[in-house]
Amino acid sequence: MTGIKAIASFIPDNTLDNLEQGRSFGESEEFIREKIGATRLARMTDGMETSDMAVGAINALFSQTGLKLEQVEALVVVTQNPDGHGLPHTSAIVQSKAGLPTNIAAFDVSLGCSGYVYGLAIIKGLMATTGMKNGILVTADPYSKVIDPKDRVTTLLFGDAATATWIGQDPLYDVVTPVFSTDGSGAEHLKVEEGVLSMNGRQVFNFAATKVPQQIKEYLQQHQLQPQDIDLYCMHQGSASIVSTIARRFNEVADRFVNDMDQTGNAVSSTLPLLLEKRIHDPANGTILLSGFGVGLSWATTLLKRNETC
Amino acid sequence: MTGIKAIASFIPDNTLDNLEQGRSFGESEEFIREKIGATRLARMTDGMETSDMAVGAINALFSQTGLKLEQVEALVVVTQNPDGHGLPHTSAIVQSKAGLPTNIAAFDVSLGCSGYVYGLAIIKGLMATTGMKNGILVTADPYSKVIDPKDRVTTLLFGDAATATWIGQDPLYDVVTPVFSTDGSGAEHLKVEEGVLSMNGRQVFNFAATKVPQQIKEYLQQHQLQPQDIDLYCMHQGSASIVSTIARRFNEVADRFVNDMDQTGNAVSSTLPLLLEKRIHDPANGTILLSGFGVGLSWATTLLKRNETC
Repeated sequence: MTGIKAIASFIPDNTLDNLEQGRSFGESEEFIREKIGATRLARMTDGMETSDMAVGAINALFSQTGLKLEQVEALVVVTQNPDGHGLPHTSAIVQSKAGLPTNIAAFDVSLGCSGYVYGLAIIKGLMATTGMKNGILVTADPYSKVIDPKDRVTTLLFGDAATATWIGQDPLYDVVTPVFSTDGSGAEHLKVEEGVLSMNGRQVFNFAATKVPQQIKEYLQQHQLQPQDIDLYCMHQGSASIVSTIARRFNEVADRFVNDMDQTGNAVSSTLPLLLEKRIHDPANGTILLSGFGVGLSWATTLLKRNETC
Repeated sequence: MTGIKAIASFIPDNTLDNLEQGRSFGESEEFIREKIGATRLARMTDGMETSDMAVGAINALFSQTGLKLEQVEALVVVTQNPDGHGLPHTSAIVQSKAGLPTNIAAFDVSLGCSGYVYGLAIIKGLMATTGMKNGILVTADPYSKVIDPKDRVTTLLFGDAATATWIGQDPLYDVVTPVFSTDGSGAEHLKVEEGVLSMNGRQVFNFAATKVPQQIKEYLQQHQLQPQDIDLYCMHQGSASIVSTIARRFNEVADRFVNDMDQTGNAVSSTLPLLLEKRIHDPANGTILLSGFGVGLSWATTLLKRNETC
């Protein structure tokens, strides 16, 4: 069985005080803390590239685990802000910068905030059907590349981060088959044009507040599970407000929904692995439900089950 | 078993006479025919987007097969020239434009000329491990978006095209496990900077002329096959010259290497499915070897085996 062995992350040292940034837009501390959910946001420094963040997370993974460079057979980088123009793919640049072997399957997957749930299924499927034993799933989507610092809708929300997940045998968590959805008719609500990100916050919020709880409920029914059967609900940390809103749709277990983005903000596809990094070592988290949702529009839900022998 | 059911394509009507283009650079007809290999190259028209080419290929697939819109559960678009900035992903836009259902797994894979071989393994792995029955693998990478028409190295070589491959049950061809390689230390040889493609033709040629035959030989050995056991060798149509060079490394079967890019040129990840589209209906092609190679650098080889019941 192939699943999650370990998770590591990289967050740029360069951060901004989001309370201060909020004040510059006339926003209260309460708004930044309660609605946005982040008092600090990281930004890549000049000269740093997406691949450098990815390599930072991969190096952290190597230093924290027994995984060796030469064992890695697959490298999947989830990003919509690749190095340069995206040609070549960032995963090829990461292969070289990280010193990974050349007999490796490396490719980028273009997805935003749903990307980690998708990425888990993509790398697991590839590895299972080709007999690969060790792979790394990277998330690295620095929105600082496309944020207009004068646009309060985006600059108060997004933070840069990268993560690296070791996918291998005898895992800590098995990945159950996800459910996926895509609705390109909402593509315009979150997009980059002329190099600048624009977001229709209201539309994206309404999409997430309705579609995500619906998908979670259907997923639980499909797997004949009650909300109480899940130990931990990890939602994409779009904002504190959207996480609370989704949690309220599951009244009886609302306290099992994690709200933890104070130091990182909405780090796109990295929010879910950032949550997991801190929580997969706690045996109390036997079953964890993940939902990712955002740009596309795209949303996906899956379940992680702790391997009882771990 | 999940494999290739059918392939369709879309080539823009707007084409240029490559003999004429060659003359404008002082190149002989012989050079264009024998070294480049294409006398005609397609170019997207103004206002056409990558997603439109993808939808053209998908619509051709629907009109030629019994596949129905509502049956499609996965949509993978291989491209490094997505719509706009690539945020959102082109596959989401294609989902909407093609009228595909919203309960679909849609994502882009960023790979160049190795992309079809990778894409087959990625979509097959995802479908096999999640129980999906029907998916579409699209290739659509219009280099006309990034070609400088004054750069003879690229403008004489690349043509726009898109393809759509139906992946499903009871397939015409099974896809055997591929072998993958990535060497990002050669990333600089084929890249886009400031929106313009540049290629070190000599370096890319040397890479393909050495690494690809080596990979094919290793792959055949792994599968305990002799070169004579393969009915058809489909190489990425990088240029007539590179295909001939690789074929010469397999003297005894050099005539089984297809050289067919006269009307399409180097159509990036679309060259292999364009070759297959014309050849998968011939029962004489029992085993077909595919090799894709290029930007990254990235290269991959796989085998297609005809299902004897078809």
